[in-house]
Amino acid sequence: MDILKGKGEKSPLYVKNAWYVAAWCNEVDEAGLYSISIANSPVLIYRKEDGQLAAMADQCCHRHMPLSRGIREGDDIRCMYHGLKFNTKGRCIEVPTMKLSGDDVPAQFVVPAYPVAERHDWVWVWMGDPEKADEALIPPTSGPDHPDWFMHKGHLDYAANYLLINDNLTDLGHIAYTHKNSFAGGRSDAYFNQPRVQKLDRGIRITRWNTNAPRRAYQKGKADFYDQYMTYDFLVPGVLMMYQGMFEAGSAEACDFGQVREDLEPDTASFTSQAVTPMTDATSRYFFSWGPRMVEHQENDQIVEGMWKLANQAFMEDKITIEAQQEIVNLQTGAPMVSITDDRGPVMFRKVLDSFVAEEA
Amino acid sequence: MDILKGKGEKSPLYVKNAWYVAAWCNEVDEAGLYSISIANSPVLIYRKEDGQLAAMADQCCHRHMPLSRGIREGDDIRCMYHGLKFNTKGRCIEVPTMKLSGDDVPAQFVVPAYPVAERHDWVWVWMGDPEKADEALIPPTSGPDHPDWFMHKGHLDYAANYLLINDNLTDLGHIAYTHKNSFAGGRSDAYFNQPRVQKLDRGIRITRWNTNAPRRAYQKGKADFYDQYMTYDFLVPGVLMMYQGMFEAGSAEACDFGQVREDLEPDTASFTSQAVTPMTDATSRYFFSWGPRMVEHQENDQIVEGMWKLANQAFMEDKITIEAQQEIVNLQTGAPMVSITDDRGPVMFRKVLDSFVAEEA
Amino acid sequence: MDILKGKGEKSPLYVKNAWYVAAWCNEVDEAGLYSISIANSPVLIYRKEDGQLAAMADQCCHRHMPLSRGIREGDDIRCMYHGLKFNTKGRCIEVPTMKLSGDDVPAQFVVPAYPVAERHDWVWVWMGDPEKADEALIPPTSGPDHPDWFMHKGHLDYAANYLLINDNLTDLGHIAYTHKNSFAGGRSDAYFNQPRVQKLDRGIRITRWNTNAPRRAYQKGKADFYDQYMTYDFLVPGVLMMYQGMFEAGSAEACDFGQVREDLEPDTASFTSQAVTPMTDATSRYFFSWGPRMVEHQENDQIVEGMWKLANQAFMEDKITIEAQQEIVNLQTGAPMVSITDDRGPVMFRKVLDSFVAEEA
Repeated sequence: MDILKGKGEKSPLYVKNAWYVAAWCNEVDEAGLYSISIANSPVLIYRKEDGQLAAMADQCCHRHMPLSRGIREGDDIRCMYHGLKFNTKGRCIEVPTMKLSGDDVPAQFVVPAYPVAERHDWVWVWMGDPEKADEALIPPTSGPDHPDWFMHKGHLDYAANYLLINDNLTDLGHIAYTHKNSFAGGRSDAYFNQPRVQKLDRGIRITRWNTNAPRRAYQKGKADFYDQYMTYDFLVPGVLMMYQGMFEAGSAEACDFGQVREDLEPDTASFTSQAVTPMTDATSRYFFSWGPRMVEHQENDQIVEGMWKLANQAFMEDKITIEAQQEIVNLQTGAPMVSITDDRGPVMFRKVLDSFVAEEA
Repeated sequence: MDILKGKGEKSPLYVKNAWYVAAWCNEVDEAGLYSISIANSPVLIYRKEDGQLAAMADQCCHRHMPLSRGIREGDDIRCMYHGLKFNTKGRCIEVPTMKLSGDDVPAQFVVPAYPVAERHDWVWVWMGDPEKADEALIPPTSGPDHPDWFMHKGHLDYAANYLLINDNLTDLGHIAYTHKNSFAGGRSDAYFNQPRVQKLDRGIRITRWNTNAPRRAYQKGKADFYDQYMTYDFLVPGVLMMYQGMFEAGSAEACDFGQVREDLEPDTASFTSQAVTPMTDATSRYFFSWGPRMVEHQENDQIVEGMWKLANQAFMEDKITIEAQQEIVNLQTGAPMVSITDDRGPVMFRKVLDSFVAEEA
Repeated sequence: MDILKGKGEKSPLYVKNAWYVAAWCNEVDEAGLYSISIANSPVLIYRKEDGQLAAMADQCCHRHMPLSRGIREGDDIRCMYHGLKFNTKGRCIEVPTMKLSGDDVPAQFVVPAYPVAERHDWVWVWMGDPEKADEALIPPTSGPDHPDWFMHKGHLDYAANYLLINDNLTDLGHIAYTHKNSFAGGRSDAYFNQPRVQKLDRGIRITRWNTNAPRRAYQKGKADFYDQYMTYDFLVPGVLMMYQGMFEAGSAEACDFGQVREDLEPDTASFTSQAVTPMTDATSRYFFSWGPRMVEHQENDQIVEGMWKLANQAFMEDKITIEAQQEIVNLQTGAPMVSITDDRGPVMFRKVLDSFVAEEA
């Protein structure tokens, strides 16, 4: 994956056998025809009359007209260029100008249907071999629909290759600088330790304890300083699920700076789900949620707004940073890149992606 | 011509020995220097003092400055970069900073002159070998200047390769869908038959009878339903000339669904001239007119406005459709394309274009 | 350099061992981080606390983040992606997330520093081998900071390759046409002679006498007509320094139409410094100043405004011309180009540039 190597070349390869986040569930509404390019492939997603989702190539098999410019007829989609009608499986079931319908329509009149699922408030699309579309492979995150958390959600579009965004999200080192005035509370020189980075079957796990993390303004807490625990998995193709908790000082040491002990209870805790979807080689969509435990929200109805304001500032900081980085990468200066400890996450995750791409090739 | 084949590649080849529509006659006015790229070549067109047209490369032979940024001096054009002056034949007749004029100017100081003609209210430019520029090859259409018709005229610029527009215009199948709410009067499921498609020396001829076509709101007619007759030639490089008439029910059968019998008189009739001009590989200009017989206009001064409103809605429907199609083609997904009966026109016309290109090669 | 040859291809090669104008001195202020691409390389320039300049690649050695998005810490720059800190020599002196600083930072943690100098009110950057950065090679122009002249200054960005702008500036022939209504005072057919063009070690020298040049409206002068003397050097990579004087009629002949005799005193005189900097292959920045002798300004406080209004009109005429030319060049029509006497300057200067590029290769 050459972007990391500084060659300025975009990776032409995407993992196909993976669930990509295509939308927040409410973005695919009852009436609409939702369209998004995923890894350069146009995808149509819509809700059937029973509320279930259908997904297929947004590209008529006849002359490549986007089907999302067509109309719904019950659960079917009619292309409004020449009237070809497709069922939810992408099978053309009517060519009206030829007076063909049903099984009389030749078998090659079909567009790829994509396995699609709703889980954790996201719409997931499987871009590879449908036979291998195992819903058990959907990352086990928690979304805004989870009863234990109270989350807000949103998305941002990037003028950048998704690998640069993955790099950003698998690296905690940038928080002290890119997010100095948001997540880092104004303190670049503060309490940030190196995380533990661990390889998983479909991604990586990152865990970090920060000692002496100050209570945020929006938090009601017992103490002024905490041991802040962050742990997240980042899974193929680019899905982040992170738990954060503020624990009594001393907890980090008590846990040997590793996984939090089950008997320890955080003073406050939050969860964030995030996903990076490559639209084209040069554009990406970044989905995100964040919020506290439901019980904290019920005690303090200001907390979510405080967190959300902070998150939106920080996510915009990332967007400005990464798009500026992409502009320099585009100049293709040929300058080398050096590595720092913080790259362990990005490098390890890129290797995981590479191995998935290689295996599919 | 690979666009049809779904390879997403643009044809690098254009027919040269053909008359291209460059403008409506009134778009080249007495004073102006009209500029348009035709098949990637910049063309300057202007009116001489006697009102006749001159056309040449819009690209000074010295440093490729567009001559359309220059000024007129009588019938000549002076480039305003270094003052080179060209006569109507593209011959440089003065290099003022070298004090050269007339025959003293070296012979290679010349830009290609293009044969140009005004016919049917259009300005036509011949982009190939001037020796072969036979005005008899100008498509024998009728324009707004024809005394028997009362037409409005206009043009639209497309962000699309012209082949996709040609495809659209040589296919009547899309009318029931793309134009469901305009030309098709809200009825996709209605009265549309397959046309007869016939090869001509320089294009194709398409003829169709639709039975039970309803009278339009802007028409004063005797009956509520007619047999609607449409016939048009579509000629190289992309010129459409179409006659439409509403005939007494039963006429289609009486004509064996073929050419209208000379003894039959339509209740109402209209004519449209249309032309597609490739500007660059990625952009095209679409010229169009439409209107009823002069006698109908004289009886009903609302009819032209009714038709024109309808046409503008329909032509915008095509533009939206084709530009959306082009965006998908640009993704180069490699998806195959299937053919339907309605493709007979597009396929036959692309073959004609291919044969012209091959012959010139 | 193919642009001149009409092949429509951009030169991929730039002279490296040369001083490029990066900014007017006041454009790099005390607090800011100034960024400009020079010959496709991003460059950061800023002022140290002592007011001296520092320049380095605007591209962090870690992940190519532009350092100009970072912050200043004293004389150092901290990248705000991961906090790497660089001294004024481009040496990384701190990797905070790795707790590395000073000599513990590996030697390859470095970005190229560029030799930078302030001279003649311009910031100059040397893009090649720092060992060869001899400030004696900075063109010996006079800028707005010179006590003998009273100049205004500005810049324009072009959507054009810099070679087309160099061509324009090394050719006096276009003045009578492109600038007919500005510099040429409405008279294309007037008093313009061919200049003498002479090769220099690092560029060319152009000298021209125009006889019967009329006094401009903003000039207070003794006579209505003068012998106008213009002489300028145009040096690698694209720096113009021009002296103009209005001398008593007959002076041209008295100087044999060559260099002005030292005993001759102009009635009015002006100086202009101009520089063309390639930003990318397709974009350039054009810096310019112009003004009269300080003594003339002191006698006539309207003269600078008159000159500046004229210059801005003329420089915009050039921009419109050259960007139009570039659009035609981009069409890559393959049309040949012919040469005229006025090309002596452009051709000679392109040869100088070519020889510098070849020597470095």
